[in-house]
Amino acid sequence: MSYLDSRYKFLDGKVDLISFGEMLVDFISKKNQVLISEVEEFTRYFGGSAANVAVNAKRLGVQARIITRIGDDAFGHFLLDVLNKENINTNGIQIDKKRRTPLVFVNKTAGTPAWLAYRNADKYLEFNEKVEYLIKNTKILYLTTFIISQKPARKVALKTLNIIKENPKKLLAFDPCFRPSLWSDSKIGKSLVKKIIAFSDFIKPSLDDAKIFFGTDSPENYIDKYLQLGANIVILTMGKDGVLVSDGRTKTHLSSYADEVVDVTGAGDAFWAGFITAILDGMSIGKAVKLGNVTAVFKIRGIGALSPIPSKQQLIKFMKKQEASQ
Amino acid sequence: MSYLDSRYKFLDGKVDLISFGEMLVDFISKKNQVLISEVEEFTRYFGGSAANVAVNAKRLGVQARIITRIGDDAFGHFLLDVLNKENINTNGIQIDKKRRTPLVFVNKTAGTPAWLAYRNADKYLEFNEKVEYLIKNTKILYLTTFIISQKPARKVALKTLNIIKENPKKLLAFDPCFRPSLWSDSKIGKSLVKKIIAFSDFIKPSLDDAKIFFGTDSPENYIDKYLQLGANIVILTMGKDGVLVSDGRTKTHLSSYADEVVDVTGAGDAFWAGFITAILDGMSIGKAVKLGNVTAVFKIRGIGALSPIPSKQQLIKFMKKQEASQ
Repeated sequence: MSYLDSRYKFLDGKVDLISFGEMLVDFISKKNQVLISEVEEFTRYFGGSAANVAVNAKRLGVQARIITRIGDDAFGHFLLDVLNKENINTNGIQIDKKRRTPLVFVNKTAGTPAWLAYRNADKYLEFNEKVEYLIKNTKILYLTTFIISQKPARKVALKTLNIIKENPKKLLAFDPCFRPSLWSDSKIGKSLVKKIIAFSDFIKPSLDDAKIFFGTDSPENYIDKYLQLGANIVILTMGKDGVLVSDGRTKTHLSSYADEVVDVTGAGDAFWAGFITAILDGMSIGKAVKLGNVTAVFKIRGIGALSPIPSKQQLIKFMKKQEASQ
Repeated sequence: MSYLDSRYKFLDGKVDLISFGEMLVDFISKKNQVLISEVEEFTRYFGGSAANVAVNAKRLGVQARIITRIGDDAFGHFLLDVLNKENINTNGIQIDKKRRTPLVFVNKTAGTPAWLAYRNADKYLEFNEKVEYLIKNTKILYLTTFIISQKPARKVALKTLNIIKENPKKLLAFDPCFRPSLWSDSKIGKSLVKKIIAFSDFIKPSLDDAKIFFGTDSPENYIDKYLQLGANIVILTMGKDGVLVSDGRTKTHLSSYADEVVDVTGAGDAFWAGFITAILDGMSIGKAVKLGNVTAVFKIRGIGALSPIPSKQQLIKFMKKQEASQ
């Protein structure tokens, strides 16, 4: 068990963070529409939660790698071009010669965006020596729910989790973004997500995630429900209402410092990146949540999941200013 | 064997034309780019050769149906909405509850457009009673190469072709658009396309199709090569250079009447629609090629594969005017 004032010490390792999950192309509607079927124009963006977390963490100085599988096609080449520009080592990325890079079509709306996933190469992620080596040499594993929703990739994720379990020094950050439509059997999905929550060091559900998982309830009750499942640290992000975080002893509320909301795409991924960076730096969990929170603030000032964010030093400065003003 | 002056008589049938092949969403680049990986903005269009031929033929008064398989998703719903507006009976369309509507991304360029196909539900077309009933009750079958490029849909197409073979009164119009990248084994593909060419009543390759199939050669030699494979009527479309048509006895050249070229997407499908409409009307094959040619002229004056075309009467009038001026 760890608490909000706990800090972690890591042995020197070859990799700080393995982001295990989806890298894909987001096709986002140019106009707000009611239905995706009505959208005529789409703009393509780099996307996928695991890839977004890795790129943002890398920008904050973290040695981050992505484990994912994409196609040897125009969209896969576009994603790799972005990673090369960000100087991310692409060693953990599998290129499928037969299958396509996954896509997600997103309909911008005033509310929760509608989306339609085209799963493809991502589902066929393989467990190989590279995957094993990377997992054995990382300090933190970030895992998404998307990648465990389909077999055979799910089996690879579960093998990976076993390596993490056997190494108590390695931390597991799990994003419990459960969406029934991504699973062939959503009951199996829910039960698997519960099991992973139980042995995760950190989970960061959004209010949407909690509502889809537990039904309508209050933020406080959501936190309790996640804790009852065995969660260690629960970070519930609530958009403009800030963040509610708990270690099982207390529930602490953080305001959203968001002043200028341009695009919330990837805000949660930026949060994870700031949070993980702070944990790797030896900050307390409580402080890390604050750094995650300010990282998201800067992300939503720009368009796309990879809009520019300041350096770690600038983020820490901003965080301290916010603390002082409270 | 039939010749350019041959005409067909059909028994009364429930359906004039079965368009057997792909119905999909085309995502076309807004700007001309060198590579699809560089395209940022896409516009979505109704697409798929089989669907385009059926819609255009329906507009010209033909009782046309489509046999294809799409997903029960936003893009499938969009395609069905278009068919409903065109008053096409969708009885032959299979809705796959698990798989997605196929997509093709197209990069507009000055030359031949680059494209990237996302195959999906289309590959899983099933042979069922509806398919059998429709094929047994049609006068003409239009078949694309796309749909035979992947199993299990290929098996359904071959079963369908057997029904056509057993009924010499039924005509087969085959589009020999062979693209190696669509096939798991392109040698098998080429050999299958050759077999189908041999017993087709009409084939309409483009210069691109011929070049990919036979390598660089002259239009006249392409015609001879198709005839050597056993083709009956070969209609070679050559863009601005018009059409070269042969029944094995003569080679006749038709000029392109295209005066105003806005977008050539679907020009070949519009040609097929005009040609098939004329054949069903009892015109000679030679006349039907002319009607196909003028139908394409009107299509390329507008954007998208389904840009407006005039009525059959207007097309015939235009065709006669062109004949008189020559």
